[in-house]
Amino acid sequence: MSRAESKRTGRRPGASDTREQIAVAARSQFAELGYERATFRGIAAAADVDPALVVHFYGSKEDLFREVMQLPPAVTDTLVRIADGPREQMGRRLAELVIAALENPATRPVVLGRIRSASSHPDAAALVRETVTRDLSALTTAITDDQPDTRAVLVGAHVVGIALARYVVLVEPLASLPTAQVIELVAPTFQHYLTEPLTIQRSVRPEPVSR
Amino acid sequence: MSRAESKRTGRRPGASDTREQIAVAARSQFAELGYERATFRGIAAAADVDPALVVHFYGSKEDLFREVMQLPPAVTDTLVRIADGPREQMGRRLAELVIAALENPATRPVVLGRIRSASSHPDAAALVRETVTRDLSALTTAITDDQPDTRAVLVGAHVVGIALARYVVLVEPLASLPTAQVIELVAPTFQHYLTEPLTIQRSVRPEPVSR
Repeated sequence: MSRAESKRTGRRPGASDTREQIAVAARSQFAELGYERATFRGIAAAADVDPALVVHFYGSKEDLFREVMQLPPAVTDTLVRIADGPREQMGRRLAELVIAALENPATRPVVLGRIRSASSHPDAAALVRETVTRDLSALTTAITDDQPDTRAVLVGAHVVGIALARYVVLVEPLASLPTAQVIELVAPTFQHYLTEPLTIQRSVRPEPVSR
Repeated sequence: MSRAESKRTGRRPGASDTREQIAVAARSQFAELGYERATFRGIAAAADVDPALVVHFYGSKEDLFREVMQLPPAVTDTLVRIADGPREQMGRRLAELVIAALENPATRPVVLGRIRSASSHPDAAALVRETVTRDLSALTTAITDDQPDTRAVLVGAHVVGIALARYVVLVEPLASLPTAQVIELVAPTFQHYLTEPLTIQRSVRPEPVSR
């Protein structure tokens, strides 16, 4: 059942409020519990609606996850527009965007919910693979044709690690650092993965490491 | 109940075999299910022993997790000895060690189990904070007195991100790259976090970013 067509087109405030209320509750449940442990019943309870309404508005759990765990268009637009700015600022601008999304109570559950869900359930992992590939590869492809997909995964991997360490596992001192300082710390890594040559420039090409 | 004293001192092969069999099963259950969803019953079934034996050998679930999810001393020794080698090789040596631990069937469940457990349960998060802080800070403190704990968390965050992307969420092309290439890709980031100045050297000090 696809209900994506009706998204954001509802004219009756009642239905659209309820729909958004469910989306907010679902994001928070996915972020806290992960894909597998989040339930229609729990989401409905958090949204203070009947569980049948969740199904009515969103269909299956996979449809629900897929729809509510999208980054807002404003974020994905800003992301891809990093490629239009000065090259030497790209890492920093990406760091600012990522940390802003993680500090914002509206988008934090989307990012954390994707991460926790992806590491706990194959269906969620598939959805996250899609979105990481689409959102971050749109940026890296706009920047370079040198291994853009590899760059997107490396950037995504660092985003995930920083998000888990700072916002989920709360590892100090990272968890308590001011946002400006976190941005300073990770910007050079993003800059490297976005714009610099990907292999170490060495005098001798290293031997393959056997497993 | 602390059973750490008796660790590795058992002389009767039977008991020590059973103990190790339980440890292997527990690592694999923690890695697959995370801390919260792993159970004594499931671990016992996987080890083909009575659940009471798991309690007998390891005490509480927290004790069990704490004990079986340690990295082998050989790995932590090699980790801290990176600080004794050439400075310009430290990132690469760390990358080799991390990828080797993730490719090795004996240590992969320890690393993945910690990550999945830490992101799903506060008790496990606390245990992981302890071990990340201890294992990686031992290295960074031996390398530099410039913010070694921050460096340890940044390195740990990237390890976690790479491990999730390559081995759990299976994001391509990272999941299929040969190990030698993954090492090449991440070594410069480890090198940066281990040995280079942590803030971007800019002509103008950036303004703090407001939330």
